[in-house]
Amino acid sequence: MEGRRIKLIGFTSFENVDDARRKLLEAVNISVSEEEVEALHSVGRISSRTVTASKDFPPYDRAAVDGLAVKYMDISGASESNPIPLKLAGRVEAGSENPPGLKEGEAIIVFTGAPIPYGADAVVPFEFSKIDGDIVYIFKSVARFRNISFRGEDFKKGDVLLERGEIVRPWHVAALAQSSIEKVHVFRKIRVAIINTGNEVYDPVTNPDGKLPNSTGPLIAAYVKELGGEPLTYGVIRDDKEEISRNVDRALDKSDIVIITGGTSVGGKDLVPDALASLPNSRLVFHGVNLRPGRTAGAFVIKGKPVLMLSGLPVACLVGLENFFKPILSKITGLKLPPEPVVEARLSRPIANAVGFRSYYRVAVYEDGGELIAEPLRLTGSGILSTLLKGNGLLVINEDVEGYDKGEIVKVRLLKSPYQGKPRFLY
Amino acid sequence: MEGRRIKLIGFTSFENVDDARRKLLEAVNISVSEEEVEALHSVGRISSRTVTASKDFPPYDRAAVDGLAVKYMDISGASESNPIPLKLAGRVEAGSENPPGLKEGEAIIVFTGAPIPYGADAVVPFEFSKIDGDIVYIFKSVARFRNISFRGEDFKKGDVLLERGEIVRPWHVAALAQSSIEKVHVFRKIRVAIINTGNEVYDPVTNPDGKLPNSTGPLIAAYVKELGGEPLTYGVIRDDKEEISRNVDRALDKSDIVIITGGTSVGGKDLVPDALASLPNSRLVFHGVNLRPGRTAGAFVIKGKPVLMLSGLPVACLVGLENFFKPILSKITGLKLPPEPVVEARLSRPIANAVGFRSYYRVAVYEDGGELIAEPLRLTGSGILSTLLKGNGLLVINEDVEGYDKGEIVKVRLLKSPYQGKPRFLY
Repeated sequence: MEGRRIKLIGFTSFENVDDARRKLLEAVNISVSEEEVEALHSVGRISSRTVTASKDFPPYDRAAVDGLAVKYMDISGASESNPIPLKLAGRVEAGSENPPGLKEGEAIIVFTGAPIPYGADAVVPFEFSKIDGDIVYIFKSVARFRNISFRGEDFKKGDVLLERGEIVRPWHVAALAQSSIEKVHVFRKIRVAIINTGNEVYDPVTNPDGKLPNSTGPLIAAYVKELGGEPLTYGVIRDDKEEISRNVDRALDKSDIVIITGGTSVGGKDLVPDALASLPNSRLVFHGVNLRPGRTAGAFVIKGKPVLMLSGLPVACLVGLENFFKPILSKITGLKLPPEPVVEARLSRPIANAVGFRSYYRVAVYEDGGELIAEPLRLTGSGILSTLLKGNGLLVINEDVEGYDKGEIVKVRLLKSPYQGKPRFLY
Repeated sequence: MEGRRIKLIGFTSFENVDDARRKLLEAVNISVSEEEVEALHSVGRISSRTVTASKDFPPYDRAAVDGLAVKYMDISGASESNPIPLKLAGRVEAGSENPPGLKEGEAIIVFTGAPIPYGADAVVPFEFSKIDGDIVYIFKSVARFRNISFRGEDFKKGDVLLERGEIVRPWHVAALAQSSIEKVHVFRKIRVAIINTGNEVYDPVTNPDGKLPNSTGPLIAAYVKELGGEPLTYGVIRDDKEEISRNVDRALDKSDIVIITGGTSVGGKDLVPDALASLPNSRLVFHGVNLRPGRTAGAFVIKGKPVLMLSGLPVACLVGLENFFKPILSKITGLKLPPEPVVEARLSRPIANAVGFRSYYRVAVYEDGGELIAEPLRLTGSGILSTLLKGNGLLVINEDVEGYDKGEIVKVRLLKSPYQGKPRFLY
């Protein structure tokens, strides 16, 4: 009764993806060590510690422009027609220590970054003044405290410069430099073992008899790399339970996460789940979720490490990575994902959602008459990569939404910028 | 009459930033060579060629699921209560060549990726069938052409897989793999020389007597690195015209672009512009733009290469990088910048713009009662780095806008995700 068996291994129900993800994150309990790198080399890495300012910045009240430190009361009312003369009483360079004091009726030349002389409470920029020997004429009054940077106004001691889990950006590097912090702790790159299965999938070394190109392996490797991880590729394993479990076991020793594609319902056999279940300390977390494409996704936790089972078809695989790999990375490192570019666009035609499924539609977003239009691409197969290349946006429809009408405004996550005008391939 | 001179070198008018940028891009005429790298290593690099598919994909009509290839007319009307029996006439694996033909009343087992037998025009998934010896019962009809991937439906020969100027993303890598393209041409990393000036700025090697930390140098280096370039740091040059021109000249030989900070109006002398003007083949493109912060920005073209003069204050410098460095990189490489995350938010208080200036306000965006609120940060000095750390968004106000009222909806570019609730530092 092979037919009967085939019928049984089909998924009869699909777990809600949010529930599946929550169970997965609860089950994952691994940690990644950190390493110390020079601040500049930390750009794009994930900070593993929260770094705070060790002192106030600026360290003292200082001039924000090149000009004249004055008592603001002395110059109030100054104008082009009523220049106010002050006695030039000195000059302070940036970084000077022990600046001179300022008396009534005096001005002291200060350069950007110079400490403000005691007694001064404003700085008049050079362009509002005229120096004549040891007298300076002020042509314009400025408000009290104008052009003074106060001690600690940028950072107070203890202020956060960089949070654990943040991807290091240029302004963090600048803030660290300002606080004379030269090295940063970042998480070491997370190691992700990638195993593709399938007799039919070609790999020059591991499965030279395969016929179909392996596009999912490179997709996952690139995705991991883009998120700052280190992909470890194991090539293609043929559809053999022993081979699969042996390779996963080996991969678990060398990686933090294992991702295995295909084989969740191969020719009537749940090869990969069976192989994973046969390993010691193995626990199935979920298998089959309400994602479209990507419903065959599943996960085990083996030896405490997550093993993701994803589709061998590229788009379905990508949806799985977004829903399961990225959240694991976030949990392990506290990664604060950067915000995604999302736009509102008008649907060019109605779109129906499969009941109960959370669907990832690929759309082409283009500007037309000052308005953004989203056209769902007709080819929505889980293997149709071109929908991610010609399409420049993802429209996610939740399981409780039956679809959208033509003309409705929907939120689309942009993969690249909108086309200017309707692109040719849509005609 | 030193005072007079000081007055004169102040900027009396500021060029419109769009005009300045256009002149700069017209003047820049450099090119960057390319290099060939393995597809996976091209992730995040800028493609230097447009790559097209060398053949149709799929290469032939093939099964999109595991199931039974049938003539759809044979099974129309099949249901649980009216199963239709077909004769099992064979089995085709993925990548098989010369699949058998299918006759009326027959079914052939096909696996995902297998070529469709001649004569079949639909594939019934296994779960809608029951195999009993050499008879298979079909329980559900499917539409004509259902579950068949047609030759070329993903990519036709000549379809674009990767455009020149695109940053290589995971789906490109997958598409290249699918087309058996193993190497990609990318632009070599653009080399950006970074020179900071200022007696007051500390550098352990080049200016150990400086007192203020050099935060702008690391900021630029990190910014260049984030955009895939290679920063070459020249440290801090003291305020000396000869020293500056000598170093810029040296830097021009080793880099594609030079960025020099500070010294555009130092202690009454336009040191950097004077130093740059003294070099052979040097032409001033603009100096002084209506950016706030960042109005002291300027550019020369020397020996055909752009030399950007930017503020030594970090936020002003960043605004200059966004407005001048990024566009140069785009021009040289055709770089298609990824879309920025932009949200609409309600202003928590009125904001006034300085007449004629394009202003970059740093705002804190937070969610409050299901709505996004943007609160302009009060410290808006061009050196106040914390506005980029505590602030999580940029609100750009154009020169023709006088400001916005409290409660108005504005577009904010997010640097990181909105806070949940009003953050503590705003109280």
